[in-house]
Amino acid sequence: MKLSRLLAPTLKETPAEAEIISHQLLLRAGMIRKLASGIYTWLPLGLRVLHKVENIIRQAMDAAGAQEILMPGVQPGDLWKESGRWEHYGRELLRFKDRHDHEYCLAPTHEEVITDLVRKEIRSYRDMPLNLYQIQTKFRDEVRPRFGIMRAREFLMKDAYSFDPDEESSAESYRIMRKAYEEIFDRLGLKYSVVEADSGSIGGSFSHEFMVLAGAGEDAIVSCPACGYSANVEKAEVKLADESAAEPIMETEQVATPDAHTIEEVAKFLSVKPHETAKTMIYLADGKPVAAVVRGDREVNEIKLKNRLGAAELELAPASVIAEVTGGPMGFSGPQNLEIPVYADQELFGIPALVVGANQKDAHLKGLNIKRDAPKAVRADLRDITETDPCPRCGATLTFARGIEVGHIFRLGTKYSQSMGATFLDADGESKPIIMGCYGIGVSRIVAAAIEQSYDENGIIFPMSMAPVSVAVLAMQAKGEVLEAAQKLHDELWAAGVDTVIDDRDVRPGFKFKDNDLSGIPLRLVVGKKGLANGQVELKRRSGGDIEMIDLDKAVLTISQMVRQAGGQTA
Amino acid sequence: MKLSRLLAPTLKETPAEAEIISHQLLLRAGMIRKLASGIYTWLPLGLRVLHKVENIIRQAMDAAGAQEILMPGVQPGDLWKESGRWEHYGRELLRFKDRHDHEYCLAPTHEEVITDLVRKEIRSYRDMPLNLYQIQTKFRDEVRPRFGIMRAREFLMKDAYSFDPDEESSAESYRIMRKAYEEIFDRLGLKYSVVEADSGSIGGSFSHEFMVLAGAGEDAIVSCPACGYSANVEKAEVKLADESAAEPIMETEQVATPDAHTIEEVAKFLSVKPHETAKTMIYLADGKPVAAVVRGDREVNEIKLKNRLGAAELELAPASVIAEVTGGPMGFSGPQNLEIPVYADQELFGIPALVVGANQKDAHLKGLNIKRDAPKAVRADLRDITETDPCPRCGATLTFARGIEVGHIFRLGTKYSQSMGATFLDADGESKPIIMGCYGIGVSRIVAAAIEQSYDENGIIFPMSMAPVSVAVLAMQAKGEVLEAAQKLHDELWAAGVDTVIDDRDVRPGFKFKDNDLSGIPLRLVVGKKGLANGQVELKRRSGGDIEMIDLDKAVLTISQMVRQAGGQTA
Repeated sequence: MKLSRLLAPTLKETPAEAEIISHQLLLRAGMIRKLASGIYTWLPLGLRVLHKVENIIRQAMDAAGAQEILMPGVQPGDLWKESGRWEHYGRELLRFKDRHDHEYCLAPTHEEVITDLVRKEIRSYRDMPLNLYQIQTKFRDEVRPRFGIMRAREFLMKDAYSFDPDEESSAESYRIMRKAYEEIFDRLGLKYSVVEADSGSIGGSFSHEFMVLAGAGEDAIVSCPACGYSANVEKAEVKLADESAAEPIMETEQVATPDAHTIEEVAKFLSVKPHETAKTMIYLADGKPVAAVVRGDREVNEIKLKNRLGAAELELAPASVIAEVTGGPMGFSGPQNLEIPVYADQELFGIPALVVGANQKDAHLKGLNIKRDAPKAVRADLRDITETDPCPRCGATLTFARGIEVGHIFRLGTKYSQSMGATFLDADGESKPIIMGCYGIGVSRIVAAAIEQSYDENGIIFPMSMAPVSVAVLAMQAKGEVLEAAQKLHDELWAAGVDTVIDDRDVRPGFKFKDNDLSGIPLRLVVGKKGLANGQVELKRRSGGDIEMIDLDKAVLTISQMVRQAGGQTA
Repeated sequence: MKLSRLLAPTLKETPAEAEIISHQLLLRAGMIRKLASGIYTWLPLGLRVLHKVENIIRQAMDAAGAQEILMPGVQPGDLWKESGRWEHYGRELLRFKDRHDHEYCLAPTHEEVITDLVRKEIRSYRDMPLNLYQIQTKFRDEVRPRFGIMRAREFLMKDAYSFDPDEESSAESYRIMRKAYEEIFDRLGLKYSVVEADSGSIGGSFSHEFMVLAGAGEDAIVSCPACGYSANVEKAEVKLADESAAEPIMETEQVATPDAHTIEEVAKFLSVKPHETAKTMIYLADGKPVAAVVRGDREVNEIKLKNRLGAAELELAPASVIAEVTGGPMGFSGPQNLEIPVYADQELFGIPALVVGANQKDAHLKGLNIKRDAPKAVRADLRDITETDPCPRCGATLTFARGIEVGHIFRLGTKYSQSMGATFLDADGESKPIIMGCYGIGVSRIVAAAIEQSYDENGIIFPMSMAPVSVAVLAMQAKGEVLEAAQKLHDELWAAGVDTVIDDRDVRPGFKFKDNDLSGIPLRLVVGKKGLANGQVELKRRSGGDIEMIDLDKAVLTISQMVRQAGGQTA
């Protein structure tokens, strides 16, 4: 592979469109190019990385007994109506009509199609356990695509689906997939955590996420070093250190708070701490108003609220609804005297007196006691876990990290098989719904996550297993014996099963070193006049360490052993 | 790979939905399932075939110096407006809007996107020649999808695009691709023809199709055994044996032809032969009426007419337009006295007197001489070539066959680079448009074409190179030493790099033989009690020939040699 012929257009400057490192470096290394918002083309080096990730996933899935299939990206709306998601999926589901005016969508996921397949093909408990997977292009019409391939609209995903006759068998299928996922991420050379997670719009009883640990990760992860508990912060349940409810200490008193709009302004004006206030947010849950109350210094965890309500859609209510249900303007709501359902975070029940909105303009209420003054308020876990909360399992102190979700496995139960009538006959001839699981990996996202985890000021540092090529041979002269020796070394490495690129371009050495560092190729061999005179070439690892001189006549053997030991692959 | 665990649901009966053999057999062998009109899921055995075809294509493309990339399936409408195809592509281009009301389409082909990519990345003649390809899912909203994966809406395609600084270099790129295609179809084990073809909506100066020869092929191909000329009938030019124009022999005479609607009825009524009549068809070419006249026993070749007119869209005119431009009803049109452009097939100029419609109800005109009576008619080649026509190159007698288009290569010239501003600086620093070529292979279609070419009454007969697995081991008993010996043979074949399925199901032998024949696996090994007693297993080729007994202890070596020699692959 000659760099002089390869379409790998590197950029010196960081493109303005790229906010995060992986996006910047993938653009700068000439591995991807943007076509439209959230839609990218993979150039040759980038695609090689993607293919290597695919290979590792495919091998592990096959070894785990899963069978590869390929389902369509364009799917009939009728199937999504059967499962109920045509209504509930929201606008990420891109819908359109074909020339005959039939409704279709671009698949963001394949539960409906696979359930339709198995309800026609699985008849008996003898046909299970069955695990079907695919590596296929998905489309999600994200409202704000960003971060390059990290949160794209069109992306490559591996999705697997398991089918079992009973809970025990389904749990075993889940366990097998979890183990396969660990093998995949180990082989990819990534540092990751497996955490308990929210099941979101896929649904089902419980799920785990695989998180690549990286400072710029979108998700916060909490872990307990004592008992091993680990969860996405958006899902981690909060257990209070003190569960007892506080008794009232004063009567409520309405006070004027002109021009105090934020919690900070109100607290300052009334000389209290923000944690002695509560904020009341009015939401529309599937169109119906509901109030959620949390401490003034907290935010409502909307995922917890949505799950607590069992709602499909949740959004902040507009000012007109707030006025109607509270009697006051936005920014002055309180939980008292509301006719709509009120959910109050559990810690509010431990605070004797709170400052809340008075449900009228420029006024707040002091001395509110949730139990006394909002007696219908439902006690709920509505906020994110924090560093001062104990482990919900064992009570020990928690640690926090940031991660990028690259895999997500779900116990679906009978959510889809029941709504879509996917049944089988058990050993007694009785018809039962199939028990399902689903298992996703963001294939293209892994490439971004790996870079977020491993780079330096000069560029990407790819793990060997997913590097675009394992070795770069840099010819210090683009002609004569130097080029010849470099070309020979490149050819022999390929013959030994080591994928290699040769930088045969007629450019300055500094330019070659810079491009090489940028693209993250694990091993660099420099072929120069001086080394050749001694029968040697320079070896340097992208991950660090000193330059070594190695004998040219042993180079192929040395390098191919290094590549194999580090988990390199040729494809 | 155990058949007892594999999702390969065979069907005894031919499904009513399937009209052609490949569609019937792919369904019956459990390799595909329909999701919606023209949209299919590939099941495990089918997908293995597809992957083997992909591999062969990828290897040949890489060897020819093409670089693999991956472009998006969802494309912004703006790019298609730049090239002009947003208006001209017709309803096969599925258009929709995203949540932000921006226009997009599902890609039926990628000329716009690749041209957009290279106009940003190619700056100098030194960046070329460049050839970029992808293996990617396409969508074409066919008006009438049919024949299973043969004419699907969503399908897998390999498309390559070449970029050159001048005609000579572009011709060389075309030649390299043509050679790579020949290698691909040779390695796939297909019988095919390379023919001159129409360039259709892709455009460009000329093109060749690769046609898999099969009786049920949608296309008719003409070949000259004398000079090697070969073309798609829809494109093959007609050269007349006698080019001289006939002189009139009589005056025109209007005759009443009540109730004579078809050419046959008119000819019978007036006691002439159908080839002594002419039919006049009124079309709308890009919305404007035009008349096309061919001999009464011929059909208008609409592709030739469209190309002759340089029209983007061509459709038959409705009755109202016919009445307006001819003055008569549909079925009674003639070329005389029309105000609209008239194109007459060249052979009509050699006929002294024709019967044509009189442009009024229930009347025809006898004795029409095109030159005299429709003096403005343009002489054109408007009909398909036939067995009585001579070779347009050398005049020899032609042969005809039917084929399935599986590949199509185009010289595009500067059609896209000019409309979209893809230029480069030549050696003199002058800005010029890039010269392009494009090269497609219908990857999923190849699977159907191979079956149409090779099957018998029992099922598919796959070439070794693209069989789902190379070998099937049939265990005549699903337990004991027979199953053990079969399993051992299966495992050892895999270890030797031969992909193999074992039929370990507890079903009657007849059932195993039937399923095995159906799925087209090239080699069948039967392990039974009697053979084992003699240390032997039965070998049979799916393509025919007698059963052989081979020694069990030499079976792995024998079979792996046979598979390798026949071009088998493991993937």
